[in-house]
Amino acid sequence: MDSLSSHLERLRSEGPLVHSITNFVVMNNTANALLAVGASPVMAHALEEMEEMVGLASALVVNIGTLSKKWVKSMELAMDVAQRLKKPIIVDPVGAGATSYRTRTVMELMLRNHPTILRGNASEILALTDASSQTKGVDSVLESNDALAAAKLLAGQFGATVVVSGKVDFVVRGGQVYEVSNGHPLMGKVTGMGCCASVLCAAFAAVAENPVEATCAAMATMGVAGEMAAADARGPGSFQVRFLDELYQLTGESLQATAVVRESSA
Amino acid sequence: MDSLSSHLERLRSEGPLVHSITNFVVMNNTANALLAVGASPVMAHALEEMEEMVGLASALVVNIGTLSKKWVKSMELAMDVAQRLKKPIIVDPVGAGATSYRTRTVMELMLRNHPTILRGNASEILALTDASSQTKGVDSVLESNDALAAAKLLAGQFGATVVVSGKVDFVVRGGQVYEVSNGHPLMGKVTGMGCCASVLCAAFAAVAENPVEATCAAMATMGVAGEMAAADARGPGSFQVRFLDELYQLTGESLQATAVVRESSA
Amino acid sequence: MDSLSSHLERLRSEGPLVHSITNFVVMNNTANALLAVGASPVMAHALEEMEEMVGLASALVVNIGTLSKKWVKSMELAMDVAQRLKKPIIVDPVGAGATSYRTRTVMELMLRNHPTILRGNASEILALTDASSQTKGVDSVLESNDALAAAKLLAGQFGATVVVSGKVDFVVRGGQVYEVSNGHPLMGKVTGMGCCASVLCAAFAAVAENPVEATCAAMATMGVAGEMAAADARGPGSFQVRFLDELYQLTGESLQATAVVRESSA
Repeated sequence: MDSLSSHLERLRSEGPLVHSITNFVVMNNTANALLAVGASPVMAHALEEMEEMVGLASALVVNIGTLSKKWVKSMELAMDVAQRLKKPIIVDPVGAGATSYRTRTVMELMLRNHPTILRGNASEILALTDASSQTKGVDSVLESNDALAAAKLLAGQFGATVVVSGKVDFVVRGGQVYEVSNGHPLMGKVTGMGCCASVLCAAFAAVAENPVEATCAAMATMGVAGEMAAADARGPGSFQVRFLDELYQLTGESLQATAVVRESSA
Repeated sequence: MDSLSSHLERLRSEGPLVHSITNFVVMNNTANALLAVGASPVMAHALEEMEEMVGLASALVVNIGTLSKKWVKSMELAMDVAQRLKKPIIVDPVGAGATSYRTRTVMELMLRNHPTILRGNASEILALTDASSQTKGVDSVLESNDALAAAKLLAGQFGATVVVSGKVDFVVRGGQVYEVSNGHPLMGKVTGMGCCASVLCAAFAAVAENPVEATCAAMATMGVAGEMAAADARGPGSFQVRFLDELYQLTGESLQATAVVRESSA
Repeated sequence: MDSLSSHLERLRSEGPLVHSITNFVVMNNTANALLAVGASPVMAHALEEMEEMVGLASALVVNIGTLSKKWVKSMELAMDVAQRLKKPIIVDPVGAGATSYRTRTVMELMLRNHPTILRGNASEILALTDASSQTKGVDSVLESNDALAAAKLLAGQFGATVVVSGKVDFVVRGGQVYEVSNGHPLMGKVTGMGCCASVLCAAFAAVAENPVEATCAAMATMGVAGEMAAADARGPGSFQVRFLDELYQLTGESLQATAVVRESSA
């Protein structure tokens, strides 16, 4: 695996444009996370400009957090274009399992155009393989390793890199499983941290050959910035302010020194 | 009345899921306020998932801040489901009185399914009983007691708990009127503080028998966290960061000690 | 030119209501910037309430950052009403040049109803006169003076005040060109700072006779608050918190003392 620091430095020097079709709740956060880490965000959902906008971008994020029929049409078209142009597609199945509409929609999108990276919490990933599981709204009620078998199944089905994020993040592709063990409990007290992880996966994947490495670098960056931000945060308000500051200040060296990424025996 | 602290502790131990159909401006703030206080947010407006999502949630918030015909359809269906499942419905009539479309729409929604709690500022509450009153956009130009008679009327009409928020918050239901006298002027300099109050009403109502008590606990929590956040805030930016921190740090004991809630003679 | 301080004081004493039809990413930021500086925000896009809402407001902002066919209809109607009622119209052509849909749409809107003020970055302004130029998503890849000729052309075509914002902001109208040389590089690391500049232009224009003066005052206010906020910010997270605090704390005297506004020889 290339060093994490070289992935971060490459992201910073190339400053990739990441196009998101995402939910209304987190648009501001994810745009700011991209800017802070050194990438550029764009949000656009009109069918009329999808071809051109996906063409300009270096990666596409599709996030179903506040989906509706019209927006799903846009996601579908955006993924068609990204697939054709061979740009990485990152799918975030927010709230899969909470309603059958979410589970079905995200599966249909991914069956039509396989994602490069699929990132969700344990409840969401499990719901995509097991119709009987349920999420509590959009927050997971499970530990990430509860969904490891599901992640392996989905990684095989789509030829994708699948991330189950949680206290430990599992990054799965083919026979490989990596564990990223950074992060802090305050990250669960701020809305949209999962969505931020997904856009960072996109930014790293936009500048890397290998999506597993890109994903490990993204999840490690999230976790390390989260730990640093939590260090003297009084609560989730100051945490999220510092999180952006730490993403911005993070050096390759400090990422490399703090990240805990290892091949898993799981 | 149960102690305020027992209401807060019950919210924290149950962590209710609150479903909001709300405006684009405040979605992020209200989701974060719910997480900070100990509840879980979900936002969903697609008709296709309304039945299931309202079914999962413990309370529903309907906020007309950026309403449109399609979203009103979703609000209507969500309230139908919540009514049938006997889940508390909180209505926030943002900008009622500013345009007749807002006033009419929110009245139609409430006539079809009575709200459990209706929370607005004085201009908004007055507009719902008096077509001649006007709000300045979405900010009130009146004091909360100007709308007390209107609140009593609406509480009677809908069998609801009605809150007029302002320097003093009036909580009205049946013959009862409570006054909550916490808060800080900086709360008027941050967008969406009223919307946050509404989702806190939902979170407290989700875990309480008595909506008047839930509402007093919610408004006291807002006000006390607001006072604490303002204590050393330089302006509205740092205020809103600290507000989330204080919601997160607030203990039942400190809420009880600082809250100023009393039965009103008004 | 009236003193900058008198413009700021007039804004604060009148507290104008600014109506925005804007993009989902920045709604919260721009509402908070308006509140912090002393104005009032309202967001509304339903055709049903456009006539009344524009009627209540003192200025209209149209921002195409996340445009779609339906929202463009609302922008069109809002501009029709504002034109008829002689209220200032501020247009923000977010991402013009990134896609032909954006470039075409914003030109059609402005040809139908001329803007009072048009504010964009160099890439956007250039794209409106030169179909061959391209923006990188929504962030400019050019310096502001690269677009000065384009700004003069557009100012003439629409009889408008045109601002090209960047390290130096150029404010152009008729034969006049002013330069505002305040600001800080961190402003480019937070999403929506351009959008904030546009709503401040609206707030100042709402209370001024002369749109060139209003625009200079708005851009100077942005830049001065940005410099102050950056002074001890660790990164873009703390910067944006402090930016709202500084907008709120800014006095006319301190604006006057720190602003660098001069007639340009360009």
